[in-house]
Amino acid sequence: MSSSAQIDAVVSGVGTSGFGQWPDLGAPDLAVEAITEALADAGVTAADIDAAFVGSVFGAPGVANRALAAAGLAGVPTIRLEAACASGTVAFHEAVESVRHGRYERVLALGVEHLSSVFAGPIVPEASDPEGAAGLAMPALYALQADRYLHQWGHDPAGLAAVAVKNKRHGANNPRAHLRTPPPSLEEVLNSRPIAGVLTLLQCCPMTDGAAAAVISGTASGDRDVRVLASTLSSGAVWGAGSDAPWGFEAVSDAARTTFQSAGLEPSDVDVAEVHDAFTIGEVLTLEAIGLCPPGQGIELAPSGHTALGGPQPVNPSGGLLSRGHPLGATGLAQLAELVWQLRGDADDRQVEGAAIGLLETMGGGAAGVDGNACVVALLGAPQSWPGTGGQ
Amino acid sequence: MSSSAQIDAVVSGVGTSGFGQWPDLGAPDLAVEAITEALADAGVTAADIDAAFVGSVFGAPGVANRALAAAGLAGVPTIRLEAACASGTVAFHEAVESVRHGRYERVLALGVEHLSSVFAGPIVPEASDPEGAAGLAMPALYALQADRYLHQWGHDPAGLAAVAVKNKRHGANNPRAHLRTPPPSLEEVLNSRPIAGVLTLLQCCPMTDGAAAAVISGTASGDRDVRVLASTLSSGAVWGAGSDAPWGFEAVSDAARTTFQSAGLEPSDVDVAEVHDAFTIGEVLTLEAIGLCPPGQGIELAPSGHTALGGPQPVNPSGGLLSRGHPLGATGLAQLAELVWQLRGDADDRQVEGAAIGLLETMGGGAAGVDGNACVVALLGAPQSWPGTGGQ
Repeated sequence: MSSSAQIDAVVSGVGTSGFGQWPDLGAPDLAVEAITEALADAGVTAADIDAAFVGSVFGAPGVANRALAAAGLAGVPTIRLEAACASGTVAFHEAVESVRHGRYERVLALGVEHLSSVFAGPIVPEASDPEGAAGLAMPALYALQADRYLHQWGHDPAGLAAVAVKNKRHGANNPRAHLRTPPPSLEEVLNSRPIAGVLTLLQCCPMTDGAAAAVISGTASGDRDVRVLASTLSSGAVWGAGSDAPWGFEAVSDAARTTFQSAGLEPSDVDVAEVHDAFTIGEVLTLEAIGLCPPGQGIELAPSGHTALGGPQPVNPSGGLLSRGHPLGATGLAQLAELVWQLRGDADDRQVEGAAIGLLETMGGGAAGVDGNACVVALLGAPQSWPGTGGQ
Repeated sequence: MSSSAQIDAVVSGVGTSGFGQWPDLGAPDLAVEAITEALADAGVTAADIDAAFVGSVFGAPGVANRALAAAGLAGVPTIRLEAACASGTVAFHEAVESVRHGRYERVLALGVEHLSSVFAGPIVPEASDPEGAAGLAMPALYALQADRYLHQWGHDPAGLAAVAVKNKRHGANNPRAHLRTPPPSLEEVLNSRPIAGVLTLLQCCPMTDGAAAAVISGTASGDRDVRVLASTLSSGAVWGAGSDAPWGFEAVSDAARTTFQSAGLEPSDVDVAEVHDAFTIGEVLTLEAIGLCPPGQGIELAPSGHTALGGPQPVNPSGGLLSRGHPLGATGLAQLAELVWQLRGDADDRQVEGAAIGLLETMGGGAAGVDGNACVVALLGAPQSWPGTGGQ
């Protein structure tokens, strides 16, 4: 599905807006914050950008042009992409592919979402989909996954709540996170307001406005450039309702398998990961699909400390979607920004010591468990490092 | 802006749905019609498709996955694009670029729009844009252009109406067109219901549902493959309100200039063109921006017969957006389909005799006259032809 790289792509700079809810701002305002920081971080100006790949889910037609014009990039060839929750990561992937194949030399990847102006309640699948027709909002869909998973492997819901405890502890150290409340205890997570099935309020990501951006270049020009070791876009097959497997994670496992093969790496090589934890069960199923552990054991990774800061493979040191928030189209590039900071050693109180290999994963579902979905998995290498040589 | 081609891209097959209004169908239903025809036309199956580039403006998140799954293409890596009215043409351009640069061998470009489920009235720019804040719907924006144009060059509105007469005469011979009424006279166009300024009802495109698709390949495998001689994506700079030039056409002239240079062709080499005539003034300004005539003379091309079937450079032989309709995301690929049929000599009663070079143009505006807009211009060559060798 992915093709081999002709040119090494690097992430030269990243930037984000703050993450939160700002009803009085618009998508362009948030985009300006992210773009300005990313260009400065890369040491380039708008004139150095050959094209822009922009991910947004609910942004109105023209949102990409409006966002870029506000940041002084009007006139740059603009490609706007939508892949539900994976929109920002698809923008990253398309930017990387454009550089790898020699189409452009240096491009901007931008993700932007202003959910405050779109939704008052939870996001519900299209009414024309079976889930939408049944009134199933996203928390309910994930709750059904959780029920199936806990039943299948005989686990206790407390293992899911431990994911929220971990990620909220991480997020408390992230000054850009949407939710920076003192981290809750396991009991507080379990006893928070019921939302759907076993999923309580603190196990669900908030509705967040935000933007994130990255400058992707075809040649490393500085010792701060983070290498894109491999990146794969996978779209899932239709999920069979009779399947024993939880909804739609074949796209994740397919993308991960191809990405590790392309990079010549194994899941055990990953030092730090940012993955799609819109709901606690999502992180558990994702880590299994990626291959960090065998099926059925993902629920043990947070309680054991394996995926906590200080553990061997910290996951979502930014706080993840559960704490930083989930500004849909911006999420993938916010995840990328965290990994870049981690791989440069710039993550302050959240730093994973000696992080040399980072993994990025976002899945775009919508109601696409029925109709297919999208996933991007990428592996990133610390500046001036290469697998085997370290970078530590 | 565009890079030189490493691999020749060809259009191996095209297909469309019918065009009209079907409130009881959905985007996937229309997409199945278009995809099925395009795959059969190319002589390939879903298994031969490496990736899908999907243009849709108002399709809900996940529309691309739903449309592809319905056509049996679930699991194919899917990239959904939005560029207002140019969404389908951007999908074509991205598909072409992916093949040219060796990323994929054979891909599907799909455009799909089901406006019946989105709009009851005219499309209005975002309220956050100056035009939207002033209540200006798209017909009003184009009417202001028309006023400025007629004033600047001292022309009579009848020249605009002649574009509608021509395109509706063309469209009456297109069995897939949304509006196939007997072609109106100049008086009937001028006397039809006033919509905005000088633009009467018959000078405005209808609200249309539809889908169109194309198979793009990296190697010509049959004598029916239409060659992509060049394709350029251009995004417009911010339009200065003090400018004498009509709104936003720099993106068109920039894209056209680059495309002709890349192909080593001149505007006079064009045998047949499909361009963006959402309103009559649009065709006039577009043909000037493309360079088919000097500024101020575009209004003479329809009355003189220059752009009519039988004339030296027929424009919109399909009937254009005015007759075939304007299913936003599908429009660019519907234009492409018409050009492919023309260049193969398969256009029946609409055939441009000896057509060897075809031009495709679509501009995506939204309210992007203020914030920048998008345009794709492509040049296509008849099967087994090359500039200079004919194909006639």
